[in-house]
Amino acid sequence: MDQKTFDKGLEVRQAVLGKDYVENAMRNADDFNRPFQELVTEYCWGAVWGREELPRKTRSMLNLAMIGILNRPHELRTHIRGALRNGVTKEEIREVFMQLAIYAGVPAAVDSFRIAREVFAEDAKKA
Amino acid sequence: MDQKTFDKGLEVRQAVLGKDYVENAMRNADDFNRPFQELVTEYCWGAVWGREELPRKTRSMLNLAMIGILNRPHELRTHIRGALRNGVTKEEIREVFMQLAIYAGVPAAVDSFRIAREVFAEDAKKA
Amino acid sequence: MDQKTFDKGLEVRQAVLGKDYVENAMRNADDFNRPFQELVTEYCWGAVWGREELPRKTRSMLNLAMIGILNRPHELRTHIRGALRNGVTKEEIREVFMQLAIYAGVPAAVDSFRIAREVFAEDAKKA
Amino acid sequence: MDQKTFDKGLEVRQAVLGKDYVENAMRNADDFNRPFQELVTEYCWGAVWGREELPRKTRSMLNLAMIGILNRPHELRTHIRGALRNGVTKEEIREVFMQLAIYAGVPAAVDSFRIAREVFAEDAKKA
Amino acid sequence: MDQKTFDKGLEVRQAVLGKDYVENAMRNADDFNRPFQELVTEYCWGAVWGREELPRKTRSMLNLAMIGILNRPHELRTHIRGALRNGVTKEEIREVFMQLAIYAGVPAAVDSFRIAREVFAEDAKKA
Amino acid sequence: MDQKTFDKGLEVRQAVLGKDYVENAMRNADDFNRPFQELVTEYCWGAVWGREELPRKTRSMLNLAMIGILNRPHELRTHIRGALRNGVTKEEIREVFMQLAIYAGVPAAVDSFRIAREVFAEDAKKA
Repeated sequence: MDQKTFDKGLEVRQAVLGKDYVENAMRNADDFNRPFQELVTEYCWGAVWGREELPRKTRSMLNLAMIGILNRPHELRTHIRGALRNGVTKEEIREVFMQLAIYAGVPAAVDSFRIAREVFAEDAKKA
Repeated sequence: MDQKTFDKGLEVRQAVLGKDYVENAMRNADDFNRPFQELVTEYCWGAVWGREELPRKTRSMLNLAMIGILNRPHELRTHIRGALRNGVTKEEIREVFMQLAIYAGVPAAVDSFRIAREVFAEDAKKA
Repeated sequence: MDQKTFDKGLEVRQAVLGKDYVENAMRNADDFNRPFQELVTEYCWGAVWGREELPRKTRSMLNLAMIGILNRPHELRTHIRGALRNGVTKEEIREVFMQLAIYAGVPAAVDSFRIAREVFAEDAKKA
Repeated sequence: MDQKTFDKGLEVRQAVLGKDYVENAMRNADDFNRPFQELVTEYCWGAVWGREELPRKTRSMLNLAMIGILNRPHELRTHIRGALRNGVTKEEIREVFMQLAIYAGVPAAVDSFRIAREVFAEDAKKA
Repeated sequence: MDQKTFDKGLEVRQAVLGKDYVENAMRNADDFNRPFQELVTEYCWGAVWGREELPRKTRSMLNLAMIGILNRPHELRTHIRGALRNGVTKEEIREVFMQLAIYAGVPAAVDSFRIAREVFAEDAKKA
Repeated sequence: MDQKTFDKGLEVRQAVLGKDYVENAMRNADDFNRPFQELVTEYCWGAVWGREELPRKTRSMLNLAMIGILNRPHELRTHIRGALRNGVTKEEIREVFMQLAIYAGVPAAVDSFRIAREVFAEDAKKA
């Protein structure tokens, strides 16, 4: 492990997904999934998200499109919240999902819109 | 927007998915997803489903196969009900899913059979 | 192996994909892929395509939609020819691929239309 | 149907997925899904799993990787339990899912790790 | 068809994919694929790409990520050129594909990098 | 970058894919894809393939199944050769692809068998 990349990854991951979320994920890790949590933090968040060549807002929009296609509702919820944190507006989220409808098909977009609306409603309740 | 295609789409969508379902979707739309609801109604239901070159029953069977592969349980439930409305029999639904097992693999078919059985059981309770 | 199902499969496979194509596939099989060729003939063509509950024309249309999504150009070419043999018209193939555009996205349909046009052009040359 | 292959399939299926699970699936089958249950038992479990050329432990690891990509949570849960029954250790399950992260992407692995942890927790409670 | 949306679509499509490319696609259309060409122009390029809510540069980056996952090499080549036309730099294309490696897996990124390098080499030769 | 993990990755990558192949990939890298080549070497080959918890032979079989589903012919060819290098026999490759037929569908297996036969024929010619 490269400590510098890992630390960078931890910082970016917390900035995008929230400090509580990440501390929780790390604290709950056990022998089974700890190597995976570390891999994700170092490579996904440090070695890629940590690169300066794209603004985080752009990376978030890319993620919404990709995870929408990949059909992973849990991750999509997490990254919708991450996108809002990175300054993506609701209007921009809508545009990403409308473009998703064209390229990946209507059912992928139907699911993504529904999940986004659920996230918005939950967060409005908490606020 | 082409009003004629939109109106055609609204009519077909209601005929296939049920009037209540569609009125609900339109009424609950907000600024976030209204442009998407309109896009789906006009293009998916008006410009494609509205074409006369294939019978709706055939379109429904195609949809069961496609949505079964695309792995979208919410949409699959909706289109199983749409298929029954379009005259697809339970026996024909079974045949579509058995063919799906061959071409898209057994797990796609296991999920599709389970979802269909849940839909049939729910509708039997309501009847 | 169930000989009756295998024989039924061989007959259906030849009727749909052409006698030459299937004899070629069987003759060229070696120890590496013979068990697979036999599995496909019995299971895919005998145990599923051999069922009478759906007309072959419908099965062919389902296959075009499924293989179009699954993104397998070789198989798509084979099954476009099979579809024509089963009485699916070019107009109906177009409708299947337009519906594919809506549900699986535009790129899946762009590829499917291009492949179908190549198949039509090759067969027109041979005729 | 080939009775010998079917019987072999039933035996292997019960050995891997548990006798209760399989008896339940067969008993609950109705006219709608019985032909599918029989197809799966004969071809998937008899004609493929029944082959001696790969140890069942290896087949289980392949299944975890494949079903993890195919994104079918119900089947993944079933085959995580099957893998444990076939002697795959938790450590080996972790390795399969870490390799999955590389080849199929981080979200596929996030979901697979979460599902495995849920299965382990449920089974620990029952024990 | 909505003439205004179609015209908008034709204009955007030409601006992004090149006038020659689009005129060619329209001129070569026959009865088989003309309805599809029109649907794509109106729906994909007019009704979605024609919306002002996202800059075209962002839409291009989303497309590279989506088409990279969807595994459609022809379309990817077309949209790599479109992305360059929309002001996406080679460095930004690299970043999109590195993020793709993390979320959709290394093989999707290997293919996307290879295709981009082929496109760059072809265009360098022509220049 | 963690030099030790990178060096481990380079060593494993060369052992599995061949020294020539990897030296070629590294030598031909330019500013566009070098960061990706380095990421793959460190992360895929060092941080995951470099782990001792699974034998390389098992990792190769998992890869054949995964890349077969992911539908990436270039990578599949590379990893069929890697599998042979890691001691997977042709008979075992056949078994992996027969299991793939069941879980991911017949077309995925048809393509995988064809590609494997092409690789075997090319290598027989060179020998």
